Amino acid sequence: MTVLVDPWGSSLIEDYERLITEFGLELFSQSLFPEPNRIMRRGVVFAGKDLGIISECIKKKKPFYALSGIMPSGEKLHLGNKMVVEQLRYFQDHGAETYLLVADLESAAARGVTIEEARKRALDFHVPAYIALGLDPEKTKFYFQSENMDVIKIAFEASQKITLNEFRATYGSADPGRILSSITQIGDMLYPQLKKRMPGVIPVGIDQAPHLRLARDYIRRAKDKQYFLLSSIHHKFTPALNGDFKMSKSKPESCIELPEDIASIKRKIQKAKTGGRKTLEEHRRLGGVPEDDMVFELLKQHLIEDDAELMKIYTDYKSGKMTSGELKTLAIKAMTTFMTQFQKNLEKARKQVKSLHFLH
Amino acid sequence: MTVLVDPWGSSLIEDYERLITEFGLELFSQSLFPEPNRIMRRGVVFAGKDLGIISECIKKKKPFYALSGIMPSGEKLHLGNKMVVEQLRYFQDHGAETYLLVADLESAAARGVTIEEARKRALDFHVPAYIALGLDPEKTKFYFQSENMDVIKIAFEASQKITLNEFRATYGSADPGRILSSITQIGDMLYPQLKKRMPGVIPVGIDQAPHLRLARDYIRRAKDKQYFLLSSIHHKFTPALNGDFKMSKSKPESCIELPEDIASIKRKIQKAKTGGRKTLEEHRRLGGVPEDDMVFELLKQHLIEDDAELMKIYTDYKSGKMTSGELKTLAIKAMTTFMTQFQKNLEKARKQVKSLHFLH
Repeated sequence: MTVLVDPWGSSLIEDYERLITEFGLELFSQSLFPEPNRIMRRGVVFAGKDLGIISECIKKKKPFYALSGIMPSGEKLHLGNKMVVEQLRYFQDHGAETYLLVADLESAAARGVTIEEARKRALDFHVPAYIALGLDPEKTKFYFQSENMDVIKIAFEASQKITLNEFRATYGSADPGRILSSITQIGDMLYPQLKKRMPGVIPVGIDQAPHLRLARDYIRRAKDKQYFLLSSIHHKFTPALNGDFKMSKSKPESCIELPEDIASIKRKIQKAKTGGRKTLEEHRRLGGVPEDDMVFELLKQHLIEDDAELMKIYTDYKSGKMTSGELKTLAIKAMTTFMTQFQKNLEKARKQVKSLHFLH
Repeated sequence: MTVLVDPWGSSLIEDYERLITEFGLELFSQSLFPEPNRIMRRGVVFAGKDLGIISECIKKKKPFYALSGIMPSGEKLHLGNKMVVEQLRYFQDHGAETYLLVADLESAAARGVTIEEARKRALDFHVPAYIALGLDPEKTKFYFQSENMDVIKIAFEASQKITLNEFRATYGSADPGRILSSITQIGDMLYPQLKKRMPGVIPVGIDQAPHLRLARDYIRRAKDKQYFLLSSIHHKFTPALNGDFKMSKSKPESCIELPEDIASIKRKIQKAKTGGRKTLEEHRRLGGVPEDDMVFELLKQHLIEDDAELMKIYTDYKSGKMTSGELKTLAIKAMTTFMTQFQKNLEKARKQVKSLHFLH
């Protein structure tokens, strides 16, 4: 039988094509970036905006920045959140000034978590977790929104040039808390340019594309400010274990949390939606369908670093040589290794955070 | 002929009665306040909210605060703006911790004046002008919104508890810049309570009543914060010289600016709407109508401190003994004295501002 040569494809592709059109994005081309990381190589990173600018900065060693924010309204992260960190780390390793901010003002405005509580959660968990997932604390500039008046100044200036209808068109709603939150994000995204005139890239899940569009629209209007137009790079969601479009903590049985205990991970992976056949005989004869298999997706997005190794798993599963049960065993093993390491890193990072310098 | 015994009445009273109803205010009673100032005694201060609380603070020497803000988007002030300073000064003299803030973030959000420009204008003119009008710089706490992160924190927390529809109902519109501006005002008005739990009074023109209502609605909802409910005290507008409801810089010929040169003041007062009769004979016979006379209004609101002196002018004008021309001569003379003194004070205050301490 013929085996598809693109193991990186996904049955979700149609939804993402629609999103590319909807948000006016460009298809991501990994040829733009030297040493593309795992999710860039595998089509998980699938779209972006003006990435040629960032590509040139990397290749010509010109200054640029990468920025992301932590919204510390929840108590935990989930596996999908890991990809932002991997993207930040990629740019950090390729010359970006890297910013990670704690969106404590937004937590108060949009989620009703007090600033003090948001700050506490961020220091107890979110910042250490980002470091545990690979962000280099030595090379990252951290700040709290509630300690960065420059962000507020940019935000207030921007508010004058964005209409209520634009907010409504962008987000569907326009609650005051939501407006303050988006405006503050514009402040965050542009803040590094106050320090140094340079391009910047914002790695975000596709659901964040509207924020970027609003920020870019503002930049075009605020000609006197001479901001560089922001680039964005978007990754797909990690699908839920039951096959839903997006892993979400609101459906805990389909979501791998960070951190999560091993017994619980095992149980969840055992119940995951697979691309296996009804009987072993049928599986051997027809082969599995990795494109519909959430366990394979876990391996592809998160757990198997080596392309050749993943290709072999793909081929073996697709041909029927590897069963769905074997795939799950493999994923549970890899996830156990990952989670054990994450927990260790997290403990270490919690100590590091105590001596971390936050910008003022 | 009978002379009305209330020289403080005004033909504008009907509009103000409507505003009291519309904003759910209480009629101002000067008996609440010891040594009421000129505009309190003369019905120019005409309404308020929960002023009993402030009255008690004054009488029992309990701590309270008075706060106002400067929006430095314009280049000048006008005579009407003077009343806020007089009210601040009254409370300052009667034990209030007094705050004066520079609304530079609001200038950027709602007026499109950059923060730097707003700051410059405030230091060059608005802050010195407030001091020149009587605010005691030694007893006032000054700050810039753009340097006060506590204000921002209160504002962001408040945004979560106010809906877009409330903004629309309050202001008629809900542009993002407007929303940020109002939310920041709530931050300002409550900021002194972060430092010390105490009641506060906000002296404002009647047009600002909606801000107060929104802030009070928020305070009632944010029970966990235990803010004191804000009191407000409202004064009438200084009417335009042509008789319009409100003096406004957009109609310069009907507006006395601060500062303004004497020749220009003379010309404007000469053209003002009066309550004089068509001929001298008629005026002597029927008397003038001070209630319709914008020159008398200037004397009453701003220029004649002594009640007996004003009463005599009122009686003489009403009886026809004093002509409209004589009234104007008197007003021009008093305004010349006032403006000359203001200019002197302003120069002095400009020097004082250089050594002024602004809160951070």
